[in-house]
Amino acid sequence: MNEIKVFSPASIANLSCGYDILGVCLDNIGDEITVRKTKKKGVVIKKVSGQKLSTDISLNVAGVSATALLNETKVNCGFEIEIHKGIKPGSGIGSSAASSAGSVFAINKLIGEPYTNKELIKFAMYGEMAASGSKHADNVAAVLLGGFTFVRNSIENDYFKLNTPIEIAFTVIHPKIELKTKDSRAVVKDKVLLKNMIEQSANLGAFISGLYTEDYDLIGRSLKDVIIEPLRSVLIPKFEKIKSVSINSGALGCGISGSGPSVFAMCKGVTTAINVGNAMKKIYDKLDLDYDVHISCVNDIGIKILKTN
Amino acid sequence: MNEIKVFSPASIANLSCGYDILGVCLDNIGDEITVRKTKKKGVVIKKVSGQKLSTDISLNVAGVSATALLNETKVNCGFEIEIHKGIKPGSGIGSSAASSAGSVFAINKLIGEPYTNKELIKFAMYGEMAASGSKHADNVAAVLLGGFTFVRNSIENDYFKLNTPIEIAFTVIHPKIELKTKDSRAVVKDKVLLKNMIEQSANLGAFISGLYTEDYDLIGRSLKDVIIEPLRSVLIPKFEKIKSVSINSGALGCGISGSGPSVFAMCKGVTTAINVGNAMKKIYDKLDLDYDVHISCVNDIGIKILKTN
Repeated sequence: MNEIKVFSPASIANLSCGYDILGVCLDNIGDEITVRKTKKKGVVIKKVSGQKLSTDISLNVAGVSATALLNETKVNCGFEIEIHKGIKPGSGIGSSAASSAGSVFAINKLIGEPYTNKELIKFAMYGEMAASGSKHADNVAAVLLGGFTFVRNSIENDYFKLNTPIEIAFTVIHPKIELKTKDSRAVVKDKVLLKNMIEQSANLGAFISGLYTEDYDLIGRSLKDVIIEPLRSVLIPKFEKIKSVSINSGALGCGISGSGPSVFAMCKGVTTAINVGNAMKKIYDKLDLDYDVHISCVNDIGIKILKTN
Repeated sequence: MNEIKVFSPASIANLSCGYDILGVCLDNIGDEITVRKTKKKGVVIKKVSGQKLSTDISLNVAGVSATALLNETKVNCGFEIEIHKGIKPGSGIGSSAASSAGSVFAINKLIGEPYTNKELIKFAMYGEMAASGSKHADNVAAVLLGGFTFVRNSIENDYFKLNTPIEIAFTVIHPKIELKTKDSRAVVKDKVLLKNMIEQSANLGAFISGLYTEDYDLIGRSLKDVIIEPLRSVLIPKFEKIKSVSINSGALGCGISGSGPSVFAMCKGVTTAINVGNAMKKIYDKLDLDYDVHISCVNDIGIKILKTN
C-alpha cells in the first residue's frame, strides 16, 4: 500500500459528567486525510483545504503527531499528507483530534500496522498538546477507538471503549463565535468542593452504568455537570435557553461539547435529535447568530478507510 | 406471618474510589434480628445480645429506622425487636447499617411488603443519621440490595445494583483500636484539587466499567483513593504495610473499609483472600495488636430470611 485516504471524525469530549475522561465519536462530520509514501524521508504537508491552516509540520497538528510517531519508528520512506478539513478549528468538537489521530492512523496502516489504535493515542496526543497546550486524550481516544471512550490515566496509556446503546443520537450546535481555548480554560478553578466532587463522580459512575445496562433514563439523569459547566457556560450565548429547549424537546441531557462553544444534546433516537436541533436553531435565529447544526449517531468504529492504493 | 428472623449482613462502603457512593454486601458476618408483631402499638427493643447497646428506640439504630418506617405507614399493631449483634459497632463494616436495614426489612415483611427493598433505604438512613450524624446510604443500600451498589443521589432516592463478577472475594481485617467516626470525619477536607478529582473519578468510572466487563485487572488498577485515604490512613496502625503485603499476596487492591479502622482487600478468588488474610495477620501479630479477620464472597442477595412464624 502506497497511499491511503481516511475519514477522521469529530468527537465530543467531557460529556458533562466526565471532564477530561469521557469522549464519544461522531459519524458524519470529520476531516478527510490522504497520506502517500514518498522516497524522501520525513513528513510534508502538501495541501490543506476547507480551512486556513498552516502546512508547517511543526504547526499543523497532523504533522506534529506524525512526527511523534516517526520519531519512535524507523522507516525507510517519508510521507506526504493532504488534509481536507471538514471540522472548523475551535468549534469544540475535536478538530485537532481528528487531524492528529487521522495522520497517525493512516501512516500506521502504510507501514504495516506496528501499533494498535490504542497505542496510536499517545502519538495523537502530541497534536493535542500543540493545539491546546495540554496533552489530553479524551478526543483522540474517541476518534481512534470509536464509540464512547474512557480515559482512566493518560500517563499509563490506560484507555478503553465503553458500551454504546444503539439508539443514542447526538445533536451538536456550533454558534459561530470566537471562544479561545485559553479563555475557556481560564475560568476553570483548580479546587472543587468535596460535596460537588461526590455529586459529579456519582453522575459519572451512574452514566457508565447506564451505558452498560442501556438504561436511557439513568443516562439522562446522570448527564450533569455541577463543576465546569456553571463556569464555562457564561461564555456561550444563551446556553441555559439552548439547554432548556433541548430537554423540553426530548433530549436526555445537554451540555458543553469539549471546551465549547459547541453545545451537544444526547437523545434517544435520531428523530428526537432532529427535533432538538430545530428547537436549538430557533434560539440562535432570534439572536441573528450564525451557527452550524450536526445530527449524528455514535460512530462505533472511529476512523474509516475511504480508499487505498 | 407474626414473627420473622433475618440475617442482616456487614458491608464495605467507599471501596477506595467511591467515597459516599460505592458499597458491597458481605456474606458471613452480620446481625441476627428477630421481629415479632405485638398487640400494643409502637416499637420496643426487647433484647440486645452480642454487644452492649441501648434498647432505647431513640438510641438504638434499629429502633430509629423502624420508627421512621412506622411514622409513614399506618399499621394496627406494634413490634418487638431482638437483636443479636454479630458486627462490632465502630469497626467500619456497617454495624449500624446492618441493624438499621435489618429492622425495617423485617417489619416490611410482617406488614405485607408495602415497600421494595430500594424504598426501605430511606428509612434505614435514619438509623445511619442517628449513628454517625450523616444520612449516608452507601452501607444500607448494599445491605438492602445486595451485591455491589451505587448511590447516585440519596436525596432523589437514586440507588442501584451493579454487576458482581463471580470470583470477587474480600478480606477484612479489623484492628481493635478505638477510632471515633467523629475523628475519622474530621480529617477529611471540604475542598479537593481538580486534578485529584479527575484522577479519583476516572478510577471510579473505570471500576464500574470493570465490574460490568468482569475485567479483574481493570478493577485492580482502579481501586485507588488519592483523596480520602492519604488523610485517614494515618489513623490506622501500619496501614501502608497492611496494604503492601496484601498486594504482594495477590490482592487486586486494598483500602479503608468505610471510615475505618477496618481495612479491606479485594481479591480474585477465595484462596487469594485467605492468603491475604494470613499476610495481614502477621503484621498485627508483630505489633501484639488484637484483630479480627473475615473472609467473604460478595453477598448478591443482601438480607436473608432465617425463619418465619
